[in-house]
Amino acid sequence: MAETGERTIAENEIVVIRLGHRLPRDERISTHVALVSRAIGANEIFYCGQHDGSLETSVSRIVENWGGKFGITYEKSPARKLRELKKEGYCVVHLTMYGIPLPEVLSSESWISKRETGNGKLAVVIGAEQVPREIYEIADFNISVTNQPHSEVAALAVFLNEINEGKPLKREYANSERFAGGRIGIEPDERGKNVRRK
Amino acid sequence: MAETGERTIAENEIVVIRLGHRLPRDERISTHVALVSRAIGANEIFYCGQHDGSLETSVSRIVENWGGKFGITYEKSPARKLRELKKEGYCVVHLTMYGIPLPEVLSSESWISKRETGNGKLAVVIGAEQVPREIYEIADFNISVTNQPHSEVAALAVFLNEINEGKPLKREYANSERFAGGRIGIEPDERGKNVRRK
Repeated sequence: MAETGERTIAENEIVVIRLGHRLPRDERISTHVALVSRAIGANEIFYCGQHDGSLETSVSRIVENWGGKFGITYEKSPARKLRELKKEGYCVVHLTMYGIPLPEVLSSESWISKRETGNGKLAVVIGAEQVPREIYEIADFNISVTNQPHSEVAALAVFLNEINEGKPLKREYANSERFAGGRIGIEPDERGKNVRRK
Repeated sequence: MAETGERTIAENEIVVIRLGHRLPRDERISTHVALVSRAIGANEIFYCGQHDGSLETSVSRIVENWGGKFGITYEKSPARKLRELKKEGYCVVHLTMYGIPLPEVLSSESWISKRETGNGKLAVVIGAEQVPREIYEIADFNISVTNQPHSEVAALAVFLNEINEGKPLKREYANSERFAGGRIGIEPDERGKNVRRK
C-alpha cells in the first residue's frame, strides 16, 4: 500500500477473531495467529472453539516480556460476538480463500465509503477448516489473500500489514509506544542476535 | 512495494529453505510454510530436520488439485545446500526477528546492487526455534519482518508478497500459467464458496 497519510495506525482499532480452535491440533497455529495479531497491528484477539488456558498463558507471557497491552479472550459464540462488534461500529472482514481479492476490495467504492464513514474500527475474522455459512453473511467483506490454499496465519499477516500500510515492518514501530513496557527488545543486527534488556 | 515494472515475477526464481522440521511438533506449521511458498511466489521448497513423507504427500496433493509445478524436497544439510545455491548465483536471505528491518534492506545500496547485478535468483531461509550461527554467516542478508516474535509462516508470506510487489494477491495471478493444470480453482465470490472444476 502506498502511504497516503490519511490513515494512521493510531486511528485503527483492530481486533482479530480466531474461529474453531481445536486441541491439540491448533495449539501452535493459534499461538502464531495471536502473535501475528500483536506484532502487526491488532489490539486484541478473541478465540473460539475449545477453551485453552495454555494458549492464553503463552500469549500473556510474550506480552509481559516484549511489551504492550495486547489481550487474548475466549469467546464461545463468534456469531454473537461479531454482531456485537458491528453494533459498536466495527467493520467486519472475513479472510477466506473464496473471497474477493484484497487489492480489488481496497480500491472498491463500498470499502472506501465504509472506511471513510466508519470510525476506523476493524474486526478481522479468520477460520479453521469449515467456516459456518453464517460468518460469510455477517461479514461486511469476505476477502481473499490469494485464491490459493495456504495459511490463515499468512493471510492475517499480509492483510494486517497492508491495512497498516507497511508501518509494522519499520524499526520505529518495534520501538513505539505500542510495545511500551516489557523486559526485552531487539536491536536489529546484520549478522547475529542482539537482545537488549529494558 | 510500489510497482516499478523493473522486476516481474517471471524473472524471480525463488526457493525456500525450511530449517529444523521436527515431528510431530512442526507437521502443520511446515505444511503452512510450504503452501505459502507455493501461493505467494516461490517455485520450490527444501525442508531440513526430520524427513517427513506425509508432509511431502500433503503438499503434492495440493499441487495436483490446484495446479502448477511447485516441488518439495528433503535436504539433510541446510548449510551445504545454501552454499551450493550461492554458487549457482542465488542471493540468500535469512528471515529472522533479529535481522535488519525489511524496508531498510530493500532500499539499501547493498541490496539494490546485489539484485541488479544478480540473476534474480533468491533463496529464502526460515528457521525453527534455534537457528545455527552458521546460517547467519552464510546469508547475504539477515532480514526481520518486524522485530517482534510472531511466526515464520507470517514472515515468509509478508516477505514473498513484498518481493513480488503484491502481484500474488491479484485475481490474475491465481489464474496465471503459474497454476496451470490442476483439477480445481476458485471463482472469487462476495458471499460464499464458488469452486470450479477445470
